[in-house]
Amino acid sequence: LSSESVKLAATARELLASVRAKRPLIQCVTNFVSMDLVANALHALGASPAMASAPEEANEFAAIANAIVCNIGTLSRDRVECLEAVAGAARAHGKPWVLDPVGVGATRFRGETAQALLRHRPTVIRGNASEIMALARLFGIVVGDENAKPRGVDAVHASEAAEPAALALARMFSCVIIVSGRVDLVTNGALVARVNNGAPVMTRVTAMGCALSGATGAFLAVTGNPFEASVAAVAVFGVAGELAAVSGAGPGTFRVNFLDRLHDLSPDALRTSLKIDVAHARA
Amino acid sequence: LSSESVKLAATARELLASVRAKRPLIQCVTNFVSMDLVANALHALGASPAMASAPEEANEFAAIANAIVCNIGTLSRDRVECLEAVAGAARAHGKPWVLDPVGVGATRFRGETAQALLRHRPTVIRGNASEIMALARLFGIVVGDENAKPRGVDAVHASEAAEPAALALARMFSCVIIVSGRVDLVTNGALVARVNNGAPVMTRVTAMGCALSGATGAFLAVTGNPFEASVAAVAVFGVAGELAAVSGAGPGTFRVNFLDRLHDLSPDALRTSLKIDVAHARA
Amino acid sequence: LSSESVKLAATARELLASVRAKRPLIQCVTNFVSMDLVANALHALGASPAMASAPEEANEFAAIANAIVCNIGTLSRDRVECLEAVAGAARAHGKPWVLDPVGVGATRFRGETAQALLRHRPTVIRGNASEIMALARLFGIVVGDENAKPRGVDAVHASEAAEPAALALARMFSCVIIVSGRVDLVTNGALVARVNNGAPVMTRVTAMGCALSGATGAFLAVTGNPFEASVAAVAVFGVAGELAAVSGAGPGTFRVNFLDRLHDLSPDALRTSLKIDVAHARA
Repeated sequence: LSSESVKLAATARELLASVRAKRPLIQCVTNFVSMDLVANALHALGASPAMASAPEEANEFAAIANAIVCNIGTLSRDRVECLEAVAGAARAHGKPWVLDPVGVGATRFRGETAQALLRHRPTVIRGNASEIMALARLFGIVVGDENAKPRGVDAVHASEAAEPAALALARMFSCVIIVSGRVDLVTNGALVARVNNGAPVMTRVTAMGCALSGATGAFLAVTGNPFEASVAAVAVFGVAGELAAVSGAGPGTFRVNFLDRLHDLSPDALRTSLKIDVAHARA
Repeated sequence: LSSESVKLAATARELLASVRAKRPLIQCVTNFVSMDLVANALHALGASPAMASAPEEANEFAAIANAIVCNIGTLSRDRVECLEAVAGAARAHGKPWVLDPVGVGATRFRGETAQALLRHRPTVIRGNASEIMALARLFGIVVGDENAKPRGVDAVHASEAAEPAALALARMFSCVIIVSGRVDLVTNGALVARVNNGAPVMTRVTAMGCALSGATGAFLAVTGNPFEASVAAVAVFGVAGELAAVSGAGPGTFRVNFLDRLHDLSPDALRTSLKIDVAHARA
Repeated sequence: LSSESVKLAATARELLASVRAKRPLIQCVTNFVSMDLVANALHALGASPAMASAPEEANEFAAIANAIVCNIGTLSRDRVECLEAVAGAARAHGKPWVLDPVGVGATRFRGETAQALLRHRPTVIRGNASEIMALARLFGIVVGDENAKPRGVDAVHASEAAEPAALALARMFSCVIIVSGRVDLVTNGALVARVNNGAPVMTRVTAMGCALSGATGAFLAVTGNPFEASVAAVAVFGVAGELAAVSGAGPGTFRVNFLDRLHDLSPDALRTSLKIDVAHARA
């Protein structure tokens, strides 16, 4: 499917131009650790973040937002109420939305919250391999090593191990699944794209996954095709990350460079550096 | 009024020296996205931030704080209670305080909260043009394009469009209004100062407006003249921002440079680079 | 005790290697200002942060965490409930934990919270001199200048002034006390280590103390000796800070460099630059 890969890469470039031109408004209910990076990554991409989360405002923000992001990190009872209201409003207003099930599988509280939010039918779910596998197990999908519980919020699995779980979830919920890892995997249940960009230092900077979920919202806002939007977000993050990881850059320097590269990433750099591969999913 | 401009510029330099010498304690109830940048900007300026917000502590902190900042971003019921308690304590203790009505006009919840806080008589209100116009409309002041609702938390108007709203609010509440934008506007209802510094990249970094509200608190703490304090804060932010936006600096690099420049900004750099203009307000 | 100093320095190098090799999971209930820096400092050191704080998850996270950190900054009623649950779970699961009593002494609310948390027997308490002296006063230990109340959250005392308070608290609670300052002081009630590294710019960056509390958790996770763990954390922070404060680095640049240096600090740099001194405590 190399022609399909070339097409997806071209679409990623177009969607990046579209985000920059349209400056979509992305409402993010994200965890307290990641708010700064998520908002700055959206600004750097050219989108306009609104970090509002109050149930009292959910309908008014859903009405004006172009896409919505719900992230269950730093969870609390209050936060569950916010997430439920905002996800419900997203669905009621027909706005595309991203679920980031941070740490699902680590605790019962996160599992219950993720299940409750799935009732509002996310457009995209993004997690690391351990989270996607844990999420699948909540719905009775037993895949891969079923005893491997996530350890906190960091993945203990490579993204490849979560491919069967991702496919099953994508089909069960008619959504797109992004599995972040050394190789990022994106599937809509029919196609599986693999993006092999990024850099090891990205795992040493907090909230990079949350920022990718935010960015996915920005791309969802400018196309009706969630699979292409997800691939574009993953591609832009991977290539910007690779360019930001200049020789010897530690995690402090990397984070600064990364925001700069999201801001100035050129279509040419995206074309030259993107390592993408698309295949039909196994039935 | 060019001699008045020269005088205000000289005062800005003196007030910056005074903040650095006195290290005033600034209590900030600011939103969760901006806490890191607000605290770091205050530290870089030479002030001492205290990000305490509990109603249980409001009186004790108001007693020791030299100025107070209330910001309604990432609003929630709990946060309204904090803001009310802290603004009330500021007034009770006679401490100068800044209101930052983030996103007012976007939702009813924010409008009600801003109105409730105005009862405690802020010394300064800082917002972007859309927020200042929306705030004026809440008090029946119809100015400019009354159908232009803010879109989320980013301004859709130039600061000039909000000048009539700013004048009316300054007179109605006997306070100073700062309208942030490409040109920053400061008015006490009698005089209008315009500061034409800064750089476009500042709109691509989250929480820069919140940080300016914080910095305004630091300047309020060292003078009894809120108009001069507000002009000084805007001047220092504008010039530091201009110097930080070195050729090709993306938003990541800009933010780092900006904190460095707040820290090392010299009276000479402020004198040389400040573009300020003062005029009598229309009646 | 120069041979003891040499031994502690060697142990610090070994413990740093151990943190990097074992990637311990550190649960942090820290304030909202510091979450970003605490998580990034832990990642840079090679540990895995989990910023979870819900009472609903306290037992599950305490079961998998290798150490736990409780910080009372940006306190609220909800936050007290989280801190109590997490500290209680730490004790119940026998996990080492760090108490950071931010701003204790400034308000009654913080004093009551710190006292309540001490019932769960922290392994280490880290604060600045004013906080450690205020904490001692809460337990009837009158030492030093008893009228010197902290001003907000920044210290008004040198760490040396808090040595009697630190010794008394260490003995009363059988814990280790870290007093941060120009010279950092670590005591278990029998030995007192002084680390004379760091740089003045560190006082102009928010949350550096909170990040040290987080890092102390990472070192506690890899040894059963809390005194050695605390000295190692202080040593690594001091040397990384000194190396990060390159000529002319303002607070923005410093913070970036600091994360880079935590990440790439070599045993050799630690050996060459560490200025440590150990003595028997006065009885």
